[in-house]
Amino acid sequence: MNHPARLAAIKRPLPESLLSALKSVFEDRVSTTEAMRAHHGRDESSYDPMLPDAVVFAQTTEEVAEAVKMCGAYDVPVIAYGTGTSLEGHILALQGGVTIDLSQMNRTVAIHAEDLTATVQAGVTRKQLNQEIRDTGLFFPIDPGADASLGGMAATRASGTNAVRYGTMRENTLALTVVTADGRIIRTGTRAKKSSAGYDLTRLFVGSEGTLGIITEVTVRLYPQPEAISAAVCSFPSAGDAVNTVIQTIQMGVPVARVEFLDENGVKALNAHDKLGLPEAPLLLFEFHGSENGVKEQAELVQQIAADHNAVGFEWATRPEDRSRLWTARHNAYFALLQLRPGSRAISTDCCVPISRLAECILDTKSDCETHGLVYSIIGHVGDGNFHVQMLVDPNDPVDIARAEAVNERMVMRAIEMDGTCTGEHGVGMHKMGFLIQEHGEGAIDTMRAIKHALDPKNILNPGKIVHWEAE
Amino acid sequence: MNHPARLAAIKRPLPESLLSALKSVFEDRVSTTEAMRAHHGRDESSYDPMLPDAVVFAQTTEEVAEAVKMCGAYDVPVIAYGTGTSLEGHILALQGGVTIDLSQMNRTVAIHAEDLTATVQAGVTRKQLNQEIRDTGLFFPIDPGADASLGGMAATRASGTNAVRYGTMRENTLALTVVTADGRIIRTGTRAKKSSAGYDLTRLFVGSEGTLGIITEVTVRLYPQPEAISAAVCSFPSAGDAVNTVIQTIQMGVPVARVEFLDENGVKALNAHDKLGLPEAPLLLFEFHGSENGVKEQAELVQQIAADHNAVGFEWATRPEDRSRLWTARHNAYFALLQLRPGSRAISTDCCVPISRLAECILDTKSDCETHGLVYSIIGHVGDGNFHVQMLVDPNDPVDIARAEAVNERMVMRAIEMDGTCTGEHGVGMHKMGFLIQEHGEGAIDTMRAIKHALDPKNILNPGKIVHWEAE
Repeated sequence: MNHPARLAAIKRPLPESLLSALKSVFEDRVSTTEAMRAHHGRDESSYDPMLPDAVVFAQTTEEVAEAVKMCGAYDVPVIAYGTGTSLEGHILALQGGVTIDLSQMNRTVAIHAEDLTATVQAGVTRKQLNQEIRDTGLFFPIDPGADASLGGMAATRASGTNAVRYGTMRENTLALTVVTADGRIIRTGTRAKKSSAGYDLTRLFVGSEGTLGIITEVTVRLYPQPEAISAAVCSFPSAGDAVNTVIQTIQMGVPVARVEFLDENGVKALNAHDKLGLPEAPLLLFEFHGSENGVKEQAELVQQIAADHNAVGFEWATRPEDRSRLWTARHNAYFALLQLRPGSRAISTDCCVPISRLAECILDTKSDCETHGLVYSIIGHVGDGNFHVQMLVDPNDPVDIARAEAVNERMVMRAIEMDGTCTGEHGVGMHKMGFLIQEHGEGAIDTMRAIKHALDPKNILNPGKIVHWEAE
Repeated sequence: MNHPARLAAIKRPLPESLLSALKSVFEDRVSTTEAMRAHHGRDESSYDPMLPDAVVFAQTTEEVAEAVKMCGAYDVPVIAYGTGTSLEGHILALQGGVTIDLSQMNRTVAIHAEDLTATVQAGVTRKQLNQEIRDTGLFFPIDPGADASLGGMAATRASGTNAVRYGTMRENTLALTVVTADGRIIRTGTRAKKSSAGYDLTRLFVGSEGTLGIITEVTVRLYPQPEAISAAVCSFPSAGDAVNTVIQTIQMGVPVARVEFLDENGVKALNAHDKLGLPEAPLLLFEFHGSENGVKEQAELVQQIAADHNAVGFEWATRPEDRSRLWTARHNAYFALLQLRPGSRAISTDCCVPISRLAECILDTKSDCETHGLVYSIIGHVGDGNFHVQMLVDPNDPVDIARAEAVNERMVMRAIEMDGTCTGEHGVGMHKMGFLIQEHGEGAIDTMRAIKHALDPKNILNPGKIVHWEAE
C-alpha cells in the first residue's frame, strides 16, 4: 500500500561526504545495504516500505548526538528506530535520510528499587527490563502487544493491558534524556515523583514520535508486585453485554488491573493460534491485583456485575502458568488475527472514547465492519475506553483497502464526535495526520506546528509525521 | 521584600487607547483603582506587591481572547488571575500591564458523572466543584492548601494531600480550553482517558503559569467516593522515625490516600490555631480509602510499620467530623504557621526528592533551619517525597530574609543533588527561576525558551516568570 504523502516527498540522494563522516565515527556500524535499509524502512503497519539511505547503530547518547549533528549539517532527515513495531507508519523514511537504530543501546543505567524507579537506555525492551528487575520484587506494567523498546514506547506514548490500573507512558515516564535537533543532549526531568518546575518537557517528548528529539534514555516508575493476582475469563451472548459489564465496573471504581475485550472473531483467532479452547463468543479477560482479600472482593463484585449482564461462565485462572498462557495469547493477538486471512495485511487502528460511550462506539463500528463484509476483529483495553479494529485486506486490491479505510475513517469520526480521540495508543504516524486536525482543530494544530518549528527548524527529525510542516 | 528582576523590568504606562478599547468591551468590569490593582498585584508569597495598570473581569473565553488580542496589539503584558493564592510571585505584574481576573468565570460547563469527568470554567474553585458534584457519588481529589481555582491549579500544576494516591493536576487534567498569545481559542484534548494523538498540549499548558496561554476551561477526572475512609494520627520521638515510616509504607506499595508529615513546630501552630490538642512532637496524619476490609488491611499494615519506627500512639479518627477537623486544620497550616511570629511574612518553599532520600533531605534541612535560628516549620506530602518549609521573616530585616533565602537555596540544591526537583508543587514563579536552570541545565532551559518564543513571540503572557527571555 502506498501513501499519498510519498508522492509529494522530496527525496534527495545522501551526500557522499555525510556518509564518509558517519563511517568515520560509526565504522562498521553504518550500513547502506538494501536488506538493512529495507528492514528499517517498514513497521507493522500496512504501508509499503520506504527506505532510509543509510542505517547507523548507535551505542551511546553521545553517538546519537554526533549523528544528528552530522545529518543536520546536510539537512538530512534522521529517524529513530527501536524495534520497528509501530503501527501507523511512524518510522518509514518518507524523505529518505539516516535511520539511527537504537537496539544496541540496551543497557540498564540504574535500578533504584528503593525509589521504585529504573533508568534504561532507549533500546532496552519492556520484557528485558522486567527480567532485570525480577529479583527486586518490582515490575514495570506498561505492555503494548509487542516487546517494544522503552525509547519507542515513550516516543509513541504507549500503553497496553495494564494501563487501566497503572496508567500509560505519559504517567509512568519520570524523565528522558533527549538529543535535540541541533545535537544537544538534554535531560527533561528528575527522579522526583512530582514536580512543578517549569514546562513539562518530559510529557512533550513522550508521544512526539521522534519529531522533536531523539529519546536515548528513559526513567520510569516501577511498582511492587502485588501480593495476590487472579485472572478470569468470562463469555457473553453479545458484545454489548460484555462492554456494558466493563462500563459498570469502571463507573463503580473497581480497581481492576486489566480488562480486555475480544469479539468472537478475536477469540476464534486466538483459539486457532494458541489452542486456548475458549467459547467462541464475545469475551472479557480480567486480572485483579491486590491483597488476597482485596483481589477476592474485586473479583466477586465484577462477577456479580457480569452476571447482571448475562455472562456465561466465569472461569478462574489462578495458576501463574494459566494466566501467563492467556496473556501471552492476548499479546500475540495481532499475529493470530493475521492468520484469519492468509496473504493479507492488517490495517490496524484504534480509538478511545469516554467510557459511557464505549458500547455504542464498539457496536456501531462492529456493525459497519459487518455491513461491508470485512474480515476483522475488535479487541481492546476497554477499561480505558480504548479499542482496536484489525481489518485484514488484500494488499493488491485497492477496493478492499479503500473499504477498510472508509470503516476506519467512520470509526475515528465517531470517536471524535463522542469527545474521544483518533488514537488511544497507536499514535499518529502518517496514517492519522488528517484525523489529528479533525480532532484538535486548526488552532491547536498550529500550536503543534509552532512547537515543531521551534524545536526542529530545519525539519530533519522524522519529517512528515504527526504534523505537516515545511522547513524555512 | 523586593525582587532584583523588578529593577530590570521595563514598565511603560498603559496606552489610553487600549484602556478605552477594554472599556468598550468590559464596561464597568475594567478597573484602574489603586485598591483593585493592589489586590491583584500580590499573591501569598513574601514579595512586595507589583501592580498591574488595569484589571478586567472576564466572563467568557471569548472575552479573554478579546482582551488578549487588544493587549497584544499594544505589546502590553497580560496576567491571568484566579484566586491569588500562588506562593512564588506567579501573578505579580513585574512589567505592569493588564490582569485578567477569571473569578467571574465560575460556571460548571458539564458534569459527566457517567464518564467520571467534569468541565468547568477556570474560575471555579476546588471546593465549589466538590460541592456541585456531591450528589453524584464522585469527588475531585486535588487539594492544595488554598481553595484555589481550577484554572490556577492547572496553570501551576497543583497537587496536595491526595496526590500520593490520585496524582496531581498533571495526571488529572484531561483537556483545557486555552487562549493563545495571538488571541485564538484552542482545545488541547478530549474527554478520552488516554490518547496518543500528537503533542501533549494539555500537559504543556499544565504548569506553564500563564506564560504560554490563558486557561479558560478545565476538564478533569473525577473519582467514585470510596466505600470506606479512615484516618489516623500518630506521633514519633523524632522526625526521622516519622519519615522512615512513610518511606517504608511507600516502598511496600500500601495505597495510602493521604500521608502528611508535620514537625513539632507545625503541630504547635495547628494546636494553637485550631485547638487540636495533639502531642507536640513529629506527627503523621494518615487517610485510607477503599473497601471496609481494604481500609482495615492498609491501616493495620501501616500501624505495624509505624510501631517498628517507635510510633507513640496511633489514634483513629473514624467519625467524618473528626476527620474533617483534622484536614481542615492541615489545610489552614499556612495561616496557622504565620501566627507563630506576629508581624512576620512567610517565605514558603518546597522541594521533592526520590522517596529513599526523603529522611536525609528533611533532616538536613531541619538541622540547617535550627543552626540558623529560624522560626520555621516543615510539613509535607511526604508520600510523594514532597515537603514544605515555611520560614517566618521580618519583612523589614534584610539579614533575616537573607538567612532564610540561604536556607532555601541549600534545601533546593540538596534536593537537586538527590535527583529531585526545586519545586514539587509550588511552581517557579519568580522565586525559583534560577533554581530551574540549576535543575534542568542550559540545554533544557533553552528548549523551554524556544517553546515560549514560539508560542508567545512578543512575550506578553505573564512576562518574567519561569524563564527569562526577551521579545524580538
